[in-house]
Amino acid sequence: MNFTKIRSFYEKYIEINDQMWSELESCLTVKTLIKGEVFIKEGERCDYVSFVEKGMLRMYYLNEGKEVSAAFFFPGIYISVYDSFITRAVSRVYVDALTDTTIINLDYDSVQMLYRKNPAFERFGRLIAEAILISINKRMMSFMLDTPEIRYLNLINERPKVIQNIPQYMIASYLGVTPEGLSRIKKRIHKAAKN
Amino acid sequence: MNFTKIRSFYEKYIEINDQMWSELESCLTVKTLIKGEVFIKEGERCDYVSFVEKGMLRMYYLNEGKEVSAAFFFPGIYISVYDSFITRAVSRVYVDALTDTTIINLDYDSVQMLYRKNPAFERFGRLIAEAILISINKRMMSFMLDTPEIRYLNLINERPKVIQNIPQYMIASYLGVTPEGLSRIKKRIHKAAKN
Repeated sequence: MNFTKIRSFYEKYIEINDQMWSELESCLTVKTLIKGEVFIKEGERCDYVSFVEKGMLRMYYLNEGKEVSAAFFFPGIYISVYDSFITRAVSRVYVDALTDTTIINLDYDSVQMLYRKNPAFERFGRLIAEAILISINKRMMSFMLDTPEIRYLNLINERPKVIQNIPQYMIASYLGVTPEGLSRIKKRIHKAAKN
Repeated sequence: MNFTKIRSFYEKYIEINDQMWSELESCLTVKTLIKGEVFIKEGERCDYVSFVEKGMLRMYYLNEGKEVSAAFFFPGIYISVYDSFITRAVSRVYVDALTDTTIINLDYDSVQMLYRKNPAFERFGRLIAEAILISINKRMMSFMLDTPEIRYLNLINERPKVIQNIPQYMIASYLGVTPEGLSRIKKRIHKAAKN
């Protein structure tokens, strides 16, 4: 497989010379998942940061038997149960593939080795942690301050891929509403748009 | 002022030799806040990471005129509106002092200078971002999965200082309930403990 997309991803954050790239590239492994396959289970440790090459993944909690969607991942971004990856504690969430999916994995020990070898990788680690922090913080803030209707409108504006690709019941739990609640929100918005 | 507590704080994450410490120490400035004083307002940029030396601070949102508590800070930890600090965008939150408070500030430019000068500071930056990420993620997860009652019980077990020092109405909004809702929760817990 050609890993140039991953090099480009890193180069958004740091400069990568050929030696650094060859060190990084030698640690990458490819994994394919079929539709519905679970990549990480609750109670397992997350040993990878993974780059989504193709397909779609979902992160979700199982809460009293009900799936609660926490995040959706599309090609071009990183996915990891990052709290488990960092602390080495077991995951509280599941990650599964919503379609046939290809991810490229970088394992925990390689990440630590790269951090030690080159301060630029350490910087990348800081910038990625900061980016994830900002994204979680934004979602947290929205849960504290916004109505489900505002959260849905933000999703339409900011993450059209989620609206286009993800089943309604998964979007509902992601927004913290029931599927019926989401239907009502959509009707209200549709009505308001017509007036 | 004696900055040894800050040195100890850094040394929990990285090794600090005397030269590094003198570089860091020369960037620190002390700020005192009187009870009720606002340190950061919504719409201002957060230019500091601050170490709480003495006192107590609160971070809160103003949502349709109502204060919604987001976090509480006690001596020995860092406080920053970190998303604003990182991205250089304006803050969505307020930070104020709940008692007479002393903080020690490290400004944005100094932090960036330290990152460039020494990879160990870069590592510190990564580890701090990861620690903040884990803490926000934990709170986010609790908001998605736990009842307010469970959130309150977790607060008792994990953050007794909040229970002991923070007014009830601030704890209520922190948990996402009304003050009356919090009273009911406390009565239920008290009753359950007696049985």
